[in-house]
Amino acid sequence: MLYSKLFPKTIKQTPQDASLVSHKLLYRAGFIRESTAGRYYMLPLGMRVQQKIQKIIKEEMDKIGGQEMITPVLHPKALWAETNRTTSVGFELMSIKDRNEMEFVLGGTAEEMFVDLVRKFQISYKDLPLNLYQFSTKFRDELRARGGLLRVREFLMKDAYSFDISEEEFRVTYELMRQTYSKIFERAGLKTLVVASDNGYIGGEYCHEFVVESEVGESRFFVNPDNSYCAHEDIAEFIPDKKNLDEQEKSLQEVEAVRGTTMEDGVKLHRLPLWQQIKDVLFVDEKGRFILAIIRGDFDVNEIKLLHAIKAYQLRPATEEEIRNKIHSEPGFISPVGIKELIEKDVELVIVADESLHTVKNAYGGANKKHRDLLNMNLGRDYKPDITSDIAMAKEGFLAPDGSGPLTAKKGIEVGNIFQLGFHYSSKMRGANFVDKNGKPQPYYMGCYGIGLGRTLASVAEVSCDDQGIIWPLSVAPFQVHLVGLDLKGESVKREAERVYKLLQVEGIEVLFDDRIDVSPGAKFADADLIGVPFRVVISNKTGKTLEVKKRGSKQTEFLTLSSLIETVKNREWLIL
Amino acid sequence: MLYSKLFPKTIKQTPQDASLVSHKLLYRAGFIRESTAGRYYMLPLGMRVQQKIQKIIKEEMDKIGGQEMITPVLHPKALWAETNRTTSVGFELMSIKDRNEMEFVLGGTAEEMFVDLVRKFQISYKDLPLNLYQFSTKFRDELRARGGLLRVREFLMKDAYSFDISEEEFRVTYELMRQTYSKIFERAGLKTLVVASDNGYIGGEYCHEFVVESEVGESRFFVNPDNSYCAHEDIAEFIPDKKNLDEQEKSLQEVEAVRGTTMEDGVKLHRLPLWQQIKDVLFVDEKGRFILAIIRGDFDVNEIKLLHAIKAYQLRPATEEEIRNKIHSEPGFISPVGIKELIEKDVELVIVADESLHTVKNAYGGANKKHRDLLNMNLGRDYKPDITSDIAMAKEGFLAPDGSGPLTAKKGIEVGNIFQLGFHYSSKMRGANFVDKNGKPQPYYMGCYGIGLGRTLASVAEVSCDDQGIIWPLSVAPFQVHLVGLDLKGESVKREAERVYKLLQVEGIEVLFDDRIDVSPGAKFADADLIGVPFRVVISNKTGKTLEVKKRGSKQTEFLTLSSLIETVKNREWLIL
Repeated sequence: MLYSKLFPKTIKQTPQDASLVSHKLLYRAGFIRESTAGRYYMLPLGMRVQQKIQKIIKEEMDKIGGQEMITPVLHPKALWAETNRTTSVGFELMSIKDRNEMEFVLGGTAEEMFVDLVRKFQISYKDLPLNLYQFSTKFRDELRARGGLLRVREFLMKDAYSFDISEEEFRVTYELMRQTYSKIFERAGLKTLVVASDNGYIGGEYCHEFVVESEVGESRFFVNPDNSYCAHEDIAEFIPDKKNLDEQEKSLQEVEAVRGTTMEDGVKLHRLPLWQQIKDVLFVDEKGRFILAIIRGDFDVNEIKLLHAIKAYQLRPATEEEIRNKIHSEPGFISPVGIKELIEKDVELVIVADESLHTVKNAYGGANKKHRDLLNMNLGRDYKPDITSDIAMAKEGFLAPDGSGPLTAKKGIEVGNIFQLGFHYSSKMRGANFVDKNGKPQPYYMGCYGIGLGRTLASVAEVSCDDQGIIWPLSVAPFQVHLVGLDLKGESVKREAERVYKLLQVEGIEVLFDDRIDVSPGAKFADADLIGVPFRVVISNKTGKTLEVKKRGSKQTEFLTLSSLIETVKNREWLIL
Repeated sequence: MLYSKLFPKTIKQTPQDASLVSHKLLYRAGFIRESTAGRYYMLPLGMRVQQKIQKIIKEEMDKIGGQEMITPVLHPKALWAETNRTTSVGFELMSIKDRNEMEFVLGGTAEEMFVDLVRKFQISYKDLPLNLYQFSTKFRDELRARGGLLRVREFLMKDAYSFDISEEEFRVTYELMRQTYSKIFERAGLKTLVVASDNGYIGGEYCHEFVVESEVGESRFFVNPDNSYCAHEDIAEFIPDKKNLDEQEKSLQEVEAVRGTTMEDGVKLHRLPLWQQIKDVLFVDEKGRFILAIIRGDFDVNEIKLLHAIKAYQLRPATEEEIRNKIHSEPGFISPVGIKELIEKDVELVIVADESLHTVKNAYGGANKKHRDLLNMNLGRDYKPDITSDIAMAKEGFLAPDGSGPLTAKKGIEVGNIFQLGFHYSSKMRGANFVDKNGKPQPYYMGCYGIGLGRTLASVAEVSCDDQGIIWPLSVAPFQVHLVGLDLKGESVKREAERVYKLLQVEGIEVLFDDRIDVSPGAKFADADLIGVPFRVVISNKTGKTLEVKKRGSKQTEFLTLSSLIETVKNREWLIL
């Protein structure tokens, strides 16, 4: 490719809202451009990188028997209704009607579409395991887009769906996909952590995220020192330390408490430790139920765990008005003790206690009245939760459930995920069966697997760059060689540069040739650094028989003959620089 | 690929609405499956063919300097409003709002998106010519879908957009694209005709369709014997023969005419030739204007030509009620003579005469009153059209405008098209400029170019098949070799088949290996014929050292060694069988 013809050229400005390094660099170097917030043009340079990532994914998926296909973009809404996902999805579905008044959703994920396809055929146990995948545009109606390609409203996703005859067989598939994903990201130049995660709106029981550690990532997770425990904050568990369990239970006492409404105000007034206080948080779920979550004062409520505990999918904080008029309690003074006797007749209240309340005795906190507190509250004796469960957000410094530790909190970019689905879809959708050895229909055991290609691309740029620009790994670089021609007004230099350009291409090497005549060497070098092609090769009045070669990200310049350059570029050890 | 693992297997039934051969075969062989009407799953076999077509297109586009990229699927509706296409498009646009109330359309074509992208950058004459292309899903809200992949509501399209500094430069680009398209289709095994066409909702002045001749196609066009004149019926011209021009003009005469309302009724009553009668057709355009199209009785009105003549984009026939109450004429008795004096005050009526009326004198027809006719109507003397233009549908047997002929009417499938756009978009969209040599902004001269990949695939199947199934050209076949293993219960045959399967793959040959044990030879051969892979290779108890090779579409069986099979498959002369 001649740089003079490449669209677009690099630019100096960055968009005002760009805070992430990857966003700024990809934008300035001309890999991406925004159409509207969260919807991007993938420009020729970006396209080349995305296609290389796509090729790596395809090769690895095909190796393990994946079969590529593609579904329509518009999914019949009726299918999503079969599994109740029209109401339960975490992202807003975008709906559209055609002129015949048929309703569709823009695909966010495609479980229903694949099950609907497979059930059109009578498949048998001999067809399984089956692993179907596609590369297709996915839509998420995010309230806010952010950070270039990291949180967008439209993106290319590889999504795969597996069908197995049993849970046992599925476990083999799942492990194979886990290994395949690690390999894909490794080949793309990314080091990923496999983080146990919440399955969210997808359904199923367990899943894992592939996360590139990065301060700018939105995935927060906890790891032990050797990474053997690695879990997303939504589900991370820990062992709460035992506190005053040796104490005698003292009698419950209501006292005057002229204080503010924070936990700190309670600590100051009673001069008791934070952990001995009960933290009460009141929510309302999507069915209108009030949910009182109670937890040891030094921990926080994890809303995802709470949702699972109460089998709901949406929570909002109760308003002060609701606390007063529906619950007849007082903001900042809520207590589980006696609260069920106070509430309005038509109100349903569920009390959910965190396990950590088992580690403390004689707790203190509000008394459901303004400026009144209770001392010496004891679980079981003074209040009985409807549900006792782990609803705590994990905390740094504590031990993992297996006793290893201490846990550290980290952040990263989620580039892929794998989900166990089990019978979640095959039980809800009629006819989602295979014929077993005895000729009987059985539901298949499913999994699904996603990789965001734009995010993967941006993650590489985010973690592999310097002040001058991007440093692409050879495996996903838009070109392998950036040939910089200097002194091109001279006929012989020009001829030599064109000769090298052609010969490299004949060898199957992808070359970006900066053939511009009226641009200074400094500007050309700056462009080369910004774009980040692995090998910069200079031809000028001074180079003569050898070529001036510099690896992007290295300070050192070497002089190589054309043939040794070719050998170096083709050497697989240079796959990741 | 092991056939035992391929999803799906072939089936015997065809869908009730499948009338086209390509639809039936692609469906039965498992290349495609419908989700909802006009929206298809491309299954693993179909995907392989589509990807090969895609690869051919990409190679040829890159060869002429095309740069691949991709736009978002959701186009901001505001862009389509800039060019007035929200109201003028021939297909219904599908609109959607996101949760922030921003309006989008699902991309039908992407002219505005590309212009909007390019104008974000300050491009100069040095960047031109520029040719950007993408492969992306396109949406057409067709009232009725039809015929498998031939008229669908969602499809993968390669669309390209060219930017030139002048019309002169553009002509070079356009010719290059014409040649490139012919080459692409040729490589895919399709013989195409280049048919001059109407530009429809795209804008611009001229365009060409690439058409595969076929009785099932929806494109109707006229050709002269050597194909040097080849034009879509929407725009095809011809030379109307001169009739009674030697006659004296006789005086206009109104006569009683108790007759029906058809042209035939007039011929019978007056015993005069059909060509001497004036055909009057009354339309209403999108602005509510009445349009009276008049033409020689033996010709038909071409609505597309009429639309151009009156600069409108939509026509509907006037109702009988409108003819009586608004025009104060009579259905079946309309006449241009004196009609303007009859109409309601608030009605606008435009009379458009076809050029053919210049070839006839003393014409007859209605008198704007029931059962009254006029004889000896003469253009100019008795009626004066507002517009005189070619608004006739071409007719077989007449001469082309260049005098060659006679014209023949043909049908075909439109697989691609190329459009001159000129300044249509760059003049309507602000800032759609390049900087010229003098540093001044100038609008660029544009073209656009499309290929429907699914249609191309279906066209190959439609024209290249027999009663047993599809006959894929090697260049786009899903696999090159269909290896049929027989007698696989025998350990040595099984081992030999697996060995050949592996060795062929090592040679880079794509093999579909029918490894099923419990299926009869007849069923395996039937599947192979249906799927249509170019080389069928049989290994059985009887084959021994050589392989039984049959080319799909040929009756003859050869016995080849493995190495000569490999040579034959790799031989480029076999590109198209």
